[in-house]
Amino acid sequence: MEEQKQKLKILETLRHSASHLLAAAVLEMWPETKLGIGPAIENGFYYDFDFKEPITEADLPKIEEKMAEIKKRNLTITCREVLINEAKEIFKDQPFKLELINDLEKDEGIKKVSLYKLGSFEDLCRGPHLENSNLIGPFKLLSLAGAYWKGNEKNKMLTRIYGTSFSSQKELDSYLNFLKEAELRNHRKIGKDLDLFSINENVGPGLILWHPKLSATREVIEEYWRKEHRKRGYQYIYSPHIGLDNLWKTSGHLDFFEEGMYPPMLMESKDKKEKTRYFIKPMNCPFHILIYKNRPRSYRELPIRYCELGTVYRYEESGVLNGMLRVRGFTQDDAHLIVREDQFVEEVNKVLDFALELNKAFGFDKLKVYLSLRDPENKDKYVGSEENWQLAEKTLKEILEKRKVEYREDVGGAKFYGPAIDLKAVDSLGREWQGTTIQLDFNEPQKFEMTYIGKDGKEHAPIMLHRTLLGSMERFVATLIEQYAGAFPVWLAPVQVKVIPISEKNLEYGKKITEKMIEENIRVELDDRDERMQAKIRDAEHEKVPYMLIVGAKEERGNAVSVRMRGEKDLGPQAFSDFFKQISEDIDKKRQV
Amino acid sequence: MEEQKQKLKILETLRHSASHLLAAAVLEMWPETKLGIGPAIENGFYYDFDFKEPITEADLPKIEEKMAEIKKRNLTITCREVLINEAKEIFKDQPFKLELINDLEKDEGIKKVSLYKLGSFEDLCRGPHLENSNLIGPFKLLSLAGAYWKGNEKNKMLTRIYGTSFSSQKELDSYLNFLKEAELRNHRKIGKDLDLFSINENVGPGLILWHPKLSATREVIEEYWRKEHRKRGYQYIYSPHIGLDNLWKTSGHLDFFEEGMYPPMLMESKDKKEKTRYFIKPMNCPFHILIYKNRPRSYRELPIRYCELGTVYRYEESGVLNGMLRVRGFTQDDAHLIVREDQFVEEVNKVLDFALELNKAFGFDKLKVYLSLRDPENKDKYVGSEENWQLAEKTLKEILEKRKVEYREDVGGAKFYGPAIDLKAVDSLGREWQGTTIQLDFNEPQKFEMTYIGKDGKEHAPIMLHRTLLGSMERFVATLIEQYAGAFPVWLAPVQVKVIPISEKNLEYGKKITEKMIEENIRVELDDRDERMQAKIRDAEHEKVPYMLIVGAKEERGNAVSVRMRGEKDLGPQAFSDFFKQISEDIDKKRQV
Repeated sequence: MEEQKQKLKILETLRHSASHLLAAAVLEMWPETKLGIGPAIENGFYYDFDFKEPITEADLPKIEEKMAEIKKRNLTITCREVLINEAKEIFKDQPFKLELINDLEKDEGIKKVSLYKLGSFEDLCRGPHLENSNLIGPFKLLSLAGAYWKGNEKNKMLTRIYGTSFSSQKELDSYLNFLKEAELRNHRKIGKDLDLFSINENVGPGLILWHPKLSATREVIEEYWRKEHRKRGYQYIYSPHIGLDNLWKTSGHLDFFEEGMYPPMLMESKDKKEKTRYFIKPMNCPFHILIYKNRPRSYRELPIRYCELGTVYRYEESGVLNGMLRVRGFTQDDAHLIVREDQFVEEVNKVLDFALELNKAFGFDKLKVYLSLRDPENKDKYVGSEENWQLAEKTLKEILEKRKVEYREDVGGAKFYGPAIDLKAVDSLGREWQGTTIQLDFNEPQKFEMTYIGKDGKEHAPIMLHRTLLGSMERFVATLIEQYAGAFPVWLAPVQVKVIPISEKNLEYGKKITEKMIEENIRVELDDRDERMQAKIRDAEHEKVPYMLIVGAKEERGNAVSVRMRGEKDLGPQAFSDFFKQISEDIDKKRQV
Repeated sequence: MEEQKQKLKILETLRHSASHLLAAAVLEMWPETKLGIGPAIENGFYYDFDFKEPITEADLPKIEEKMAEIKKRNLTITCREVLINEAKEIFKDQPFKLELINDLEKDEGIKKVSLYKLGSFEDLCRGPHLENSNLIGPFKLLSLAGAYWKGNEKNKMLTRIYGTSFSSQKELDSYLNFLKEAELRNHRKIGKDLDLFSINENVGPGLILWHPKLSATREVIEEYWRKEHRKRGYQYIYSPHIGLDNLWKTSGHLDFFEEGMYPPMLMESKDKKEKTRYFIKPMNCPFHILIYKNRPRSYRELPIRYCELGTVYRYEESGVLNGMLRVRGFTQDDAHLIVREDQFVEEVNKVLDFALELNKAFGFDKLKVYLSLRDPENKDKYVGSEENWQLAEKTLKEILEKRKVEYREDVGGAKFYGPAIDLKAVDSLGREWQGTTIQLDFNEPQKFEMTYIGKDGKEHAPIMLHRTLLGSMERFVATLIEQYAGAFPVWLAPVQVKVIPISEKNLEYGKKITEKMIEENIRVELDDRDERMQAKIRDAEHEKVPYMLIVGAKEERGNAVSVRMRGEKDLGPQAFSDFFKQISEDIDKKRQV
């Protein structure tokens, strides 16, 4: 672990110096450019510029050349400290830097600042940096993006240049290759290509319109999810999307989570004396708790497992939104387990088993396990007694250890209301995707005064677990698009079969088998366009339909179909009944084809 | 029709006079009582009072006696007109009447008012009334309720006495009997009894928490609904619950429907210069239209049939809310059909066929059909050209006439955007329940500039139909509760089977068959409480579970079960496999048992 951290630290320094190299190159090419900031980030670096004339992606190779040229000059990177006023003089032509210097003086009361110099380029910077430009590793500029100064939409839009750098060419190549692979799987791109979803400026950022194709996949997931939950003794419930402020006061959301919530809907009586505030829900839990509390509960009823595909709304910053992966409205595959102390360990284990099974069905055999713990340095950020936290963290740890699961501790990763076990699905590119989370809650059972009558006839406090298995439908389906690069396995494919008649003469037969399959709930489309067969196959391939059935005179005579699988050659003719058996099995067994 | 109207008019006068009789009786019994208003309403009348000392339901028979006594006095009911000032003097001790007189003077500029007198009781009243108290028909006081003066929550709460009156004792008896039957089926009462749903003051009025039992029924309905829609070429979609104001401006909702919407969520930038307003959706249509408009459409793609179980929110007055029947948040079983002109008639017919089939599955064989037309006196209340309206109304009429359907015209019943066909389900008590509606829309296709490319390569405007088949899940399920008095047929029952072991020795066998049924998706509960068999049967009967399986040593030996049907005697023992076959058929065929 220590070695890993050391390596990351070195890489960060290298990338930070590469960002200075980028700025130095830009200033040599366009001396009037104004500079924003240029930090190292995960997997690379960026620098923000205010160009006099806009640049394009086509300029990036030229900038790279200039960077390479400067690097080869073997320039020592030096550091000096100067007084604030001196700094202001140095950066008098760089308004953004000046603003930063003024901020440092005003907000932090700083008297001196450090400057780093690379050749003739000197930057306001905390460092550290490499000692010489020739130590900067192989680099690559990746993309251009617009970025508001200080991330604030009211400020000027600057041009951000993203790049990356590694210690060796091999590492850089491997990363660039990974990026290429990832770009091919980008769910935003595939989503547009395959007509899967859209986001509309008149609806709002981060709010997803699910088109029919992707909705079909979601329906399959939800149906499967419901069935598996019923089997395991979960009870489905439906709750409203809005609730009065009192509810969110009691739950603690208005104290701990208000920034993440959309503003209230304010009802005002005509004389303005009475105000009622409704909030759109950021979480489902308070509603589930109210159903629990609707009548007294006996120890015999526990564990109670309420589940809901509940759509919640959270006001995320527009800068962090990303297609369906990071959104403002999403449907959690939520559940709240209300359990007795003596049921706790067994229930957590059951949820873990359930999570593994569900993830596997979607092709995620590999999961990384995290134990999210309290930050011991900041104990006042959390609710619940010291004793409860220690016991809960210890119990979760024991559960994982007893299962002989490899896990990492995420210190400070716990929610304010309790520790958690998180599972991240690892996709074919090795990327980790947040999905399952099992969270203990010390807060709400107490705030809502949840109780049950024990065997002893007295009131007891139950333990509550929040959990999602897939996370949210939006994020999970985006993950699936990236995992499968849009080529969903048969059971999840929006269109499972495309029937392609060779000529108009075979249209009737095509219709017949299409209708037969619709009757059996197979998602099938008949391509009855006046196009050549090859064009139809090409289009079906483009749509990533798993099975194409080509039907001509020969097939019609033999009650057969010529089967073609996505991305493969013709599998030849077979009896329609055999094909039907095959696809039914694919669906039933959730085969990864 | 005219005769019917005449009869209703007479009944209304009779009831209005009965309400005066009630007020006269109250004043004789409690002379200090202050009077609100007392109109005839559908099926009866009421009068609002401000009692010095509160009264209870137990006082109603005493008031009825006094009413009967006054009626027998054969009092002529007389009318006179007086000047406003004179009226003020007459009602100087009746503050609510005084307020009404002041309102009439101020708001309507009225100089004279009419008073009606029944014995010593004189009331501010527009009339008309019967000529003599002895003409008032047989009457009955029904209930007490709190009612704010003028329906405004900021005013004083008065006591409302509800009553009814008919021309004959036979009609009154039949109505009272109907009320008794209806009360037994009241979904609010049954909902509480059977733990089906709740409304919580911290969530808000008209917002339903669906408890697990009723949610199970809803899941069955929704699954069936989705399957039937898929089969008929509908495409399911998912849309967000909120949208920016621009969307609702374009759709016309902010012009025509703002009063029915919850107030906006107002985002304000820090300098208060930029304001963004999100509204929670009162309808799903704008989202469906945006999905349609996401890319160009060809004539070949039409008809497009988008469907969604979309939850919408409308701010209804709190006074009209009624359990799950009239709510503020509800899930419409919505669809929008976007069709070419040449497809219109066929699509409407298909929706009608679909509606009949769906209603029948839920036991509603009898439907009343309404054709909702424009009010020809108020043509400016509607959008769309004169020509379009005439053609659309004519076409809908022709569709109904060609189907040889009996229907009534509801003049003025059309939505502002187009005419409609409405179907009302008639329940076992003869009550009508709003469900299916098929509405033509002239407004949104134009406002959103919806088009498709025709065979001629040119842009054409499609026709849009809004339709729900069940209406909303909330209202429809409430209807079902009242229709079945909570005793759902097997396929819809929250719990379909209760397994009742005779003694602890048979618990294992009971568990075994329970698990077998769970595996087969049957909703089954094992009653493993330490109670006598008779108590368990009684409880299962109370819960209205359709099948009880009693298992003892004899059953266990023979792999059998003793079957008991809800509300009937023991049907005797049968092989478990036979029972399983039976219940599977009940479910599959949606038998009304």
